[in-house]
Amino acid sequence: MSRDIILVDPLPRTLDLIMEPAVRARLEALGEVIVCEDRQMPADMVDRYLPETVLIFGQTDMPKERLDRAPKLKAIINVESNFLPNIDYQACVERGIWVITPASAFAAPVAEAALAMALDLARGITKADREFRAGTEAYGLEGNTETFRFTGAPVGLIGFGDLGQAFRDLIRPFKNKVRVFDPWLPNEIIERQDCEPATLDEVLRQSQVVCVFASVTSENEGFIGAREFALMKKGAAFLLMSRAAVVDFPAMLEAAASGHIKVATDVFPEEPVAADDPVRQTPGLLLSAHRTGGTRDAFYALGSMAVADAELIMKGLPPRLCRRADPATAMRMRSKPVAVS
Amino acid sequence: MSRDIILVDPLPRTLDLIMEPAVRARLEALGEVIVCEDRQMPADMVDRYLPETVLIFGQTDMPKERLDRAPKLKAIINVESNFLPNIDYQACVERGIWVITPASAFAAPVAEAALAMALDLARGITKADREFRAGTEAYGLEGNTETFRFTGAPVGLIGFGDLGQAFRDLIRPFKNKVRVFDPWLPNEIIERQDCEPATLDEVLRQSQVVCVFASVTSENEGFIGAREFALMKKGAAFLLMSRAAVVDFPAMLEAAASGHIKVATDVFPEEPVAADDPVRQTPGLLLSAHRTGGTRDAFYALGSMAVADAELIMKGLPPRLCRRADPATAMRMRSKPVAVS
Amino acid sequence: MSRDIILVDPLPRTLDLIMEPAVRARLEALGEVIVCEDRQMPADMVDRYLPETVLIFGQTDMPKERLDRAPKLKAIINVESNFLPNIDYQACVERGIWVITPASAFAAPVAEAALAMALDLARGITKADREFRAGTEAYGLEGNTETFRFTGAPVGLIGFGDLGQAFRDLIRPFKNKVRVFDPWLPNEIIERQDCEPATLDEVLRQSQVVCVFASVTSENEGFIGAREFALMKKGAAFLLMSRAAVVDFPAMLEAAASGHIKVATDVFPEEPVAADDPVRQTPGLLLSAHRTGGTRDAFYALGSMAVADAELIMKGLPPRLCRRADPATAMRMRSKPVAVS
Amino acid sequence: MSRDIILVDPLPRTLDLIMEPAVRARLEALGEVIVCEDRQMPADMVDRYLPETVLIFGQTDMPKERLDRAPKLKAIINVESNFLPNIDYQACVERGIWVITPASAFAAPVAEAALAMALDLARGITKADREFRAGTEAYGLEGNTETFRFTGAPVGLIGFGDLGQAFRDLIRPFKNKVRVFDPWLPNEIIERQDCEPATLDEVLRQSQVVCVFASVTSENEGFIGAREFALMKKGAAFLLMSRAAVVDFPAMLEAAASGHIKVATDVFPEEPVAADDPVRQTPGLLLSAHRTGGTRDAFYALGSMAVADAELIMKGLPPRLCRRADPATAMRMRSKPVAVS
Repeated sequence: MSRDIILVDPLPRTLDLIMEPAVRARLEALGEVIVCEDRQMPADMVDRYLPETVLIFGQTDMPKERLDRAPKLKAIINVESNFLPNIDYQACVERGIWVITPASAFAAPVAEAALAMALDLARGITKADREFRAGTEAYGLEGNTETFRFTGAPVGLIGFGDLGQAFRDLIRPFKNKVRVFDPWLPNEIIERQDCEPATLDEVLRQSQVVCVFASVTSENEGFIGAREFALMKKGAAFLLMSRAAVVDFPAMLEAAASGHIKVATDVFPEEPVAADDPVRQTPGLLLSAHRTGGTRDAFYALGSMAVADAELIMKGLPPRLCRRADPATAMRMRSKPVAVS
Repeated sequence: MSRDIILVDPLPRTLDLIMEPAVRARLEALGEVIVCEDRQMPADMVDRYLPETVLIFGQTDMPKERLDRAPKLKAIINVESNFLPNIDYQACVERGIWVITPASAFAAPVAEAALAMALDLARGITKADREFRAGTEAYGLEGNTETFRFTGAPVGLIGFGDLGQAFRDLIRPFKNKVRVFDPWLPNEIIERQDCEPATLDEVLRQSQVVCVFASVTSENEGFIGAREFALMKKGAAFLLMSRAAVVDFPAMLEAAASGHIKVATDVFPEEPVAADDPVRQTPGLLLSAHRTGGTRDAFYALGSMAVADAELIMKGLPPRLCRRADPATAMRMRSKPVAVS
Repeated sequence: MSRDIILVDPLPRTLDLIMEPAVRARLEALGEVIVCEDRQMPADMVDRYLPETVLIFGQTDMPKERLDRAPKLKAIINVESNFLPNIDYQACVERGIWVITPASAFAAPVAEAALAMALDLARGITKADREFRAGTEAYGLEGNTETFRFTGAPVGLIGFGDLGQAFRDLIRPFKNKVRVFDPWLPNEIIERQDCEPATLDEVLRQSQVVCVFASVTSENEGFIGAREFALMKKGAAFLLMSRAAVVDFPAMLEAAASGHIKVATDVFPEEPVAADDPVRQTPGLLLSAHRTGGTRDAFYALGSMAVADAELIMKGLPPRLCRRADPATAMRMRSKPVAVS
Repeated sequence: MSRDIILVDPLPRTLDLIMEPAVRARLEALGEVIVCEDRQMPADMVDRYLPETVLIFGQTDMPKERLDRAPKLKAIINVESNFLPNIDYQACVERGIWVITPASAFAAPVAEAALAMALDLARGITKADREFRAGTEAYGLEGNTETFRFTGAPVGLIGFGDLGQAFRDLIRPFKNKVRVFDPWLPNEIIERQDCEPATLDEVLRQSQVVCVFASVTSENEGFIGAREFALMKKGAAFLLMSRAAVVDFPAMLEAAASGHIKVATDVFPEEPVAADDPVRQTPGLLLSAHRTGGTRDAFYALGSMAVADAELIMKGLPPRLCRRADPATAMRMRSKPVAVS
């Protein structure tokens, strides 16, 4: 009699990292779970199980040849969160095999940290603590000569995907005017969230706080540079939360060091950062070691979203929580590999 | 012909500190403004104008003898924000003279900073920056071993006046369960804000983040001490935002230094803090030099609230923005002077 | 040994109407409860208990002579909800006796009904039902020739007390621009609720939905008349929720009957309305028999707010839920009796 | 030189119905617009333009033969809002041709009307008006013997797509506990909106207000019948907003007529309803002639959403506002035609 096999090939994740026991139990209720998490699942292991495999959790290579040997396959669920060019997306589309990833699991913790860092720059929290420890603190109004209230300050968002929208929801009580630059979206989506669609230059010129939530694409690499930082208001705050490559990093450090703007960043061109990298001593800069998304709850959300969608797919329903690899995106990916974050 | 005199005796404030030009113009439209802001208004100056005075902005002594000489007086508006025992409150009540203060002007900036500091402790913002500068930063999940998500964490508020309620409004998007301890309030007010009335011990035991927003009274001095800190969960956050005297300060520092809880404080038993005070090097502590309320916009709000209520009073209407000195409170104040903050 | 007496003289209310058993038990914990609810409490009964009375719940006459015989009296709590000129307010103020009323208990149910009626006029709910029953219904777009979406429609509020503010909170998801006319309030209070202060004419001219939430005073009787209705946009909706006397009632009916505006009213110049009153057949009018506030939960709220404040007062704290009779208002009341609603 | 043709074949819609001039101008900027709106576009007309067609707005039959003759086709945008079995969905998927529809344009007006009708049943708005016109009105508490407050009442939603979620957003200020039955969704989506996933029976048993927002599928036809109505609380409200076929209509009328529950319906098994249909005189029933979605703004939203997504598609981006015809759904549709609403 036929079995339903679920292949789990989660590296660089592990099953324990992404699934609490109750979620793992739900996974096991969907089929017989075959795990390989100390290394990428070996070819012979994949080959042995493919004829009975219904779901793949992980980043297993799935060219046409393998897909052809998996007649029961319903979905490939990437648990790393970036699609790779190692799948024949067109063949999946034609077969009706879902290729999805729970990438939005990281949106909530990053948005929360972005607000923490925006409030920090606005109200001078980390700076005041550092000065107090150094014995140079200033009290009352004197301690606020370079601060501003986040409440009511004009905010600009660059990128309005899951992350930008999660941030927008968090700041509602602060009653900011929010401008959004996102050329991938129709204005309707921006306006429904009570934001104003704007050009990049408008966002930079008119905001007291600018947050970069955009992914890198072939078109936007380094699109925020010296010219763009110069457009910002003196004393404004700039937060880089998504990918280092969307900015000209040295220009950003220069804008912070000169005192023109205040900067916070969670990402760096090379990670880990070299011990002697001058970024460590740049004034006007709030530093975070690519740690705003990687919270324990985010990894668990990755797993629970993946399993919840797998449950729907096994019932013949479309997935609702994960992002789909769109055919168009798949095409581009086949011809132009992207780096894994 | 009779004039309407407005005495302005604002020390330790100045008129420029608390009123933008447009607000000052509204003040001047209410009467002839007599200002003394380099020192307390001298007795002869007060005496000269009292017969025609309709409003006093400031902390002028107003015993019965002076009130008797001010037949046109409608209101005394304290612009420092703490009522003093230098007014005959009972005589004011009998005469229908309003004694009010725009104390809530500071609630919004303190609440905003309290959220900044709560997020800082939860997500380790200042600590991560300090470690990055020291070259000991940890990336991803490793950088989150001691952090927690503020979103969804149980929050406890001690004191639910203007400040506590302003904070509650700011954290709505985070969907916390919020417990409130405030023995001065009926449960209805707490429940209307979607919070749960609780005892002090319940708040301490069950919260991941505890914020102290309570004023000091004769009854609550030092009411949070070693026993209370011991009730808190390991790794929870404690924020002291209102008055140092409500806690046993050394016990609080010990709770932070031992690693039992994380602490942030904006207030200190003696300010400015001595250069060699060990508080400056206490681990687990986020320091702020009594600066969260004293923002420029807060001082301007102090002035604009005072003038808006003066406008109502001059039209025969009750004030709506300032806090009133209640007769009962006035009684207590006459017998027991309070320190000015 | 001395007793603490609580006089309950609640007509036209009864104790069962306003207090659920648990609330009544809290009342009884405050003192010995003496009730007279089939008629106004007779003078001899009042006189007998005054020397030991600490609280009065009801509308008992309390001239100076009676107050003088009640040395322990701490509060008089009107449970009808309108202050009467039967109390020596000045003597109460001088003695520090609270005179309060839980009038805002009715704000929530009236605001809810006001939204029901605003949506009804906007979307034509009652009219569509009436046509359907008459066999003249129109389907789809044809059924919407005279409707408008409440969402996003400009709203105007006349009066912004407890009721206006409760309504404002209910309509937040509809994202209306809200203009407020309330000459008793500073702009700050209007602006804090994300509304725009406006003149009466601006409110009438620019709103698609106008709600009257204002109380009657000697100054505003009939202040909305033919001229004001003519200012409104054709097809706009007008809701009269507070007191009939603030409008010129025949002019309002004429504005509805002519088709110029749509009208809903919960109040009438004389209630009950005469059987042959033409208001019953006026087209363009949604009728409600002064029933939006009088819900069972509102009466219970009246009682629980009264008891909660009595508990605070017995602990020496100021009341927090009831409205106070301000000295200034008291003065006016002594000289100029007002009608009871 | 090659042209980009846009075929517009919108029956039963017309272009003027769904596009304001500014939106039509945006459409025309995308290509050469060929319209046929007095009848379905004739085959010869379709055939003539197919080789240069990039977009189809409408319900044109598109079997494989026609798709093969349209090499430039990027999207087929249904503007009626229900997918039909007249397209070869699999061929579209394989070619990367988007098949989409702006169905959610109707969600906002229906949700608004659903709240209007829920408040109407709760507070007795239409009933009170009818009684007032008949001279049988009751005032105050007597007028509220059969009403309940919507605020705080437990609400149950059957179906939680665009419509259910729009309704959920509108009722946030009412602080209801909201239970949701939707077997097509993972619990995460329900919980994110602060609702509780529940079974159908739990929703019916525990709610004071039940709203049906579910579409009809082959599986749920008539799934709410006499047994289900009997589960509801006496006096609870039931609103049928989506499709008549999901309920046993006679059983629903019987539940209303018997006084067990109050019912509102916008839909009927046969529309228009026969002149002598007894539904017109059923007591306890609020009637609406399938008119809650068909507002002018909803039709314009249909057009603007369609054009906004067409703009994205012409730039090579995925659509963001319209619903996609999922391959799985497409399969089912090919074998089992559905009726057009």
